[in-house]
Amino acid sequence: MELFFANPENIQADEIILDDFERKHALNVLRKSPGEPLAVTDGVGNLFRTTIISERPQVRLKINGREHHPLPRPKLILAVGFIRPNRLEFILEKGTELGVSAFYLIQTAYANYATGNTDRWQKILRQAMKQSLQYYLPQVQVFASLHDFLTSSEFCTLRLAAIDRNHPPLLDVLNEQFNAKPESVCLAIGPEGGFNPEEVDLFQEYGFHAVSLGKSRLRTETAALSGISIIRQFIH
Amino acid sequence: MELFFANPENIQADEIILDDFERKHALNVLRKSPGEPLAVTDGVGNLFRTTIISERPQVRLKINGREHHPLPRPKLILAVGFIRPNRLEFILEKGTELGVSAFYLIQTAYANYATGNTDRWQKILRQAMKQSLQYYLPQVQVFASLHDFLTSSEFCTLRLAAIDRNHPPLLDVLNEQFNAKPESVCLAIGPEGGFNPEEVDLFQEYGFHAVSLGKSRLRTETAALSGISIIRQFIH
Repeated sequence: MELFFANPENIQADEIILDDFERKHALNVLRKSPGEPLAVTDGVGNLFRTTIISERPQVRLKINGREHHPLPRPKLILAVGFIRPNRLEFILEKGTELGVSAFYLIQTAYANYATGNTDRWQKILRQAMKQSLQYYLPQVQVFASLHDFLTSSEFCTLRLAAIDRNHPPLLDVLNEQFNAKPESVCLAIGPEGGFNPEEVDLFQEYGFHAVSLGKSRLRTETAALSGISIIRQFIH
Repeated sequence: MELFFANPENIQADEIILDDFERKHALNVLRKSPGEPLAVTDGVGNLFRTTIISERPQVRLKINGREHHPLPRPKLILAVGFIRPNRLEFILEKGTELGVSAFYLIQTAYANYATGNTDRWQKILRQAMKQSLQYYLPQVQVFASLHDFLTSSEFCTLRLAAIDRNHPPLLDVLNEQFNAKPESVCLAIGPEGGFNPEEVDLFQEYGFHAVSLGKSRLRTETAALSGISIIRQFIH
């Protein structure tokens, strides 16, 4: 199955217009032509079953049916210190595949980078959502400090921070905490070098559980995807 | 901490000679000079505490102490269908970080690739082992078919194959099977497209548990690292 994406603004009651990126994917890559079926998501939970009406000047699709898919619960949030752009993009790609709803990118004390190519990020998220046949496009939000992030993360029910290898394994904490059926789970991962002592204190102040991801030293992106993979086994 | 690697053949009773790759890392990248300490592993469980004696013509190290680290149990084996080289290399890098002992690369029915740059593989494994501060260099073995692999995998105690999303979640199977304290765990992951029906039957014949890694469709490398991350929480 191939899944396409359309911005909600390009979706009318019975018709969808594909944007340039999706048009190329449909016509040039997959060689689709009028009359053929196409599955399209709006990235906010809807799947549209459509048929191609016309190719030019725009790809127009006729909507034959729609299904709404609820957001899997608990909502999965990944908070991560800024790292080298290619590794950060890798987190966005693989995290989306693994069902992350929101990425919070934070300029923590040890973060050596502070930004990235946000257009590229959006393309990566879109591609990964389509590839993994999901119907929700994750959000990305940037914070100038851990404090900024923490003061806005009050909504998250179960809060986890990978601090170091001396803390309880993530799996043990999840086994204990999932009895309370959290609405949302946030996992915070430091940049290369981790969090500094003030940041570790801040996490504690904001009710985060310090967890360990295992014995060997992991790169930020490996730790992030490892943690998400484990949490994901608790989402049904 | 920085960790260096030396082939066992370059390690004498009280001296180690670094190879060209490690020499550059020590002298050019980290600007080490005689008298400075260096931690070296032989990739088979030993950690050597050394001091640099001389830089040229070779980097010679004096061994001040050695520690043997046992291989973490159970032994973790990843069997994976061949995929595009850059994605396969990614599995080798991240799998090593996550503690995989052996990678079995298999030319399964749906594998579109059959080989790769084995020199590059060795460099990737070495770098990832050093980076993650581990003392065992994983093995890589190539098999021409799933049958070839299965007839040689008899030694593995707990056998898991990610077949599709309708099977029990990996975590549930691990919770059940780890009571038996397996000596080794093997996780098999298909290439893009997964395994064909004959392969699925073969797995069953060879006592593999079919498991699911979650709801969304994962790329091979994401599935591999996701599975390894989950199993890793059971290794102490």
